[in-house]
Amino acid sequence: MTPAISPPKHVFSGVFELLERHLAQLDRFLAAQPKDFEPEIREMVVYAMAATGKRIRPALVFLSGWQGPDTVPHELIRAAAVVELIHLATLVHDDIMDDADIRRNRETAARKFGSTPAVLLGDALFAHALNLATQFSTTEVCAAVSDSTRRVCAGEIVQTMRRGSLAVSREEYSRIIELKTAELFRVSCLLGARLADAPGGYTDAAACFGRHLGVAYQIYDDLADYFGHADRIGKTLGTDLASGKVTLPLFILLERLNPSEAEALRAEVVGGHPPRLAEHSRQMRELGVFDAVQIEVESELTAAREALTPWRDRPSAGMLLGLADLLQEQLANLR
Amino acid sequence: MTPAISPPKHVFSGVFELLERHLAQLDRFLAAQPKDFEPEIREMVVYAMAATGKRIRPALVFLSGWQGPDTVPHELIRAAAVVELIHLATLVHDDIMDDADIRRNRETAARKFGSTPAVLLGDALFAHALNLATQFSTTEVCAAVSDSTRRVCAGEIVQTMRRGSLAVSREEYSRIIELKTAELFRVSCLLGARLADAPGGYTDAAACFGRHLGVAYQIYDDLADYFGHADRIGKTLGTDLASGKVTLPLFILLERLNPSEAEALRAEVVGGHPPRLAEHSRQMRELGVFDAVQIEVESELTAAREALTPWRDRPSAGMLLGLADLLQEQLANLR
Repeated sequence: MTPAISPPKHVFSGVFELLERHLAQLDRFLAAQPKDFEPEIREMVVYAMAATGKRIRPALVFLSGWQGPDTVPHELIRAAAVVELIHLATLVHDDIMDDADIRRNRETAARKFGSTPAVLLGDALFAHALNLATQFSTTEVCAAVSDSTRRVCAGEIVQTMRRGSLAVSREEYSRIIELKTAELFRVSCLLGARLADAPGGYTDAAACFGRHLGVAYQIYDDLADYFGHADRIGKTLGTDLASGKVTLPLFILLERLNPSEAEALRAEVVGGHPPRLAEHSRQMRELGVFDAVQIEVESELTAAREALTPWRDRPSAGMLLGLADLLQEQLANLR
Repeated sequence: MTPAISPPKHVFSGVFELLERHLAQLDRFLAAQPKDFEPEIREMVVYAMAATGKRIRPALVFLSGWQGPDTVPHELIRAAAVVELIHLATLVHDDIMDDADIRRNRETAARKFGSTPAVLLGDALFAHALNLATQFSTTEVCAAVSDSTRRVCAGEIVQTMRRGSLAVSREEYSRIIELKTAELFRVSCLLGARLADAPGGYTDAAACFGRHLGVAYQIYDDLADYFGHADRIGKTLGTDLASGKVTLPLFILLERLNPSEAEALRAEVVGGHPPRLAEHSRQMRELGVFDAVQIEVESELTAAREALTPWRDRPSAGMLLGLADLLQEQLANLR
């Protein structure tokens, strides 16, 4: 009944080592959730929960409300579980949309149970996450999380509607990642600080940090789709281009290619020609696309750090800043 | 921008005439919701909301909290909007699963926008409904609604997994309709009474009434799929048999047919033979299936009425009892 819950090694592992007790308690809390679902669907819930994410959002809750490695307030655990379950629900629905068979070396819920039950399973996970969010003394947590969830869905809708199309602008790309990724990063930081009774100014600063870190992380992730080492980041490369998703590296490459090369690449995006990933990674290196994307990530990281500057003496701020440093290191390692 | 929101005529129209002011305020409240969604998805939200349901669940909220035709408390309007939006979200997801092209004479959201955006659109509607549910002074409404939503999804999952299969028992059928239909009827009554500050005993009684009325309504609806007049109930008949859904009339028919006829019918359920609806309606009449199902509906209506007996002098109880009478009349009219 207990899901396999060790998070995979990833970009933030350096900071995660300090969160050992927090993450262990989160694991126990999450492992106790399936019993709150109807018996008929418990097995499906356990399966979906075993596809655990990288625990980045729970980590943001813990770090924003950080009071030392041995202080693990129950309210932070519950809030971390809420954001992780929302994230898991979106993964279940994402995998239906992407028609994905495999996530983290196992069949997706959509593949295992069929896409129709997977739609409903994602819904049930959403509903349960929001139910957990009502177990705080005020409506604040549930209000923040449901608002974020709506925004995440809006971002995913825009992204989905633009797939395989060149009619997506850079402004739209920014808006999509702001909604689909940065929003849940933001609310995770906000809740962590808020539940740890941090001053209002720090809560706002942490939320602002979370938002910029989220944008930086998504751009990094989009770059890794062209430059990552599949064995190191644990996913197939080139899926964005293959699925017609226009991300920042591709935008910049299209701007820099000569007209005939750009035309050929456009045909790959709209599905007219098979994608040539190796060729485009080479072009990106030669035309300085990596550098240009790196500048964008670093500018978001700078904005994230600046939000916390007035609070840098708070241990919590120091921990969050550590995440920004780790992301910057990993970005350099992609090269 | 304003969705077309006149509810279609239906089984409960007699009581609905008394709810004119309540429903008009609900319409205005619902018409104001799309602006709370991200601009990029507002048009989709308006479209999905125009596929308005029959407003049965909002009516249950209003009647359970009834204080006369001219007293329309804002909290009841908001709660009615919450349950209606949850119901609309489930319809958006249902239509994806049923691969339905048309609902109430217009294209389904899944057909118009594609099934992938429709999954996310349903999610956004869920999230917004639960966000509205946080706008009460305590977490109680949101807790009740999110709990119900999870149960509705569980019921739909079980139903979906059993489709096209004869391995569904009568107990499972009861459980499915208890979860997928009776649950939201129950919580609608509970919230109406609760928000009107009714005594706890009445709130429990109204919830119990709602649950039994929901079961009765679903069995009636399942019977109407074999005996209804398509022009009168506004939907295609025979969809349950065609989609392999084993409902109570079919259970009873299978029990009463001779072995070779039963075998032929089983082959239709699992998709081996095309469904012969007219033949089975005739068999159901001849073998007393209609009568047997009618007894089941009436037994649920009796249980519903009994729950309210100690409270029959409350005007609210009188209104709810009117719904039970209307359903009983409509059932007789199916014949």
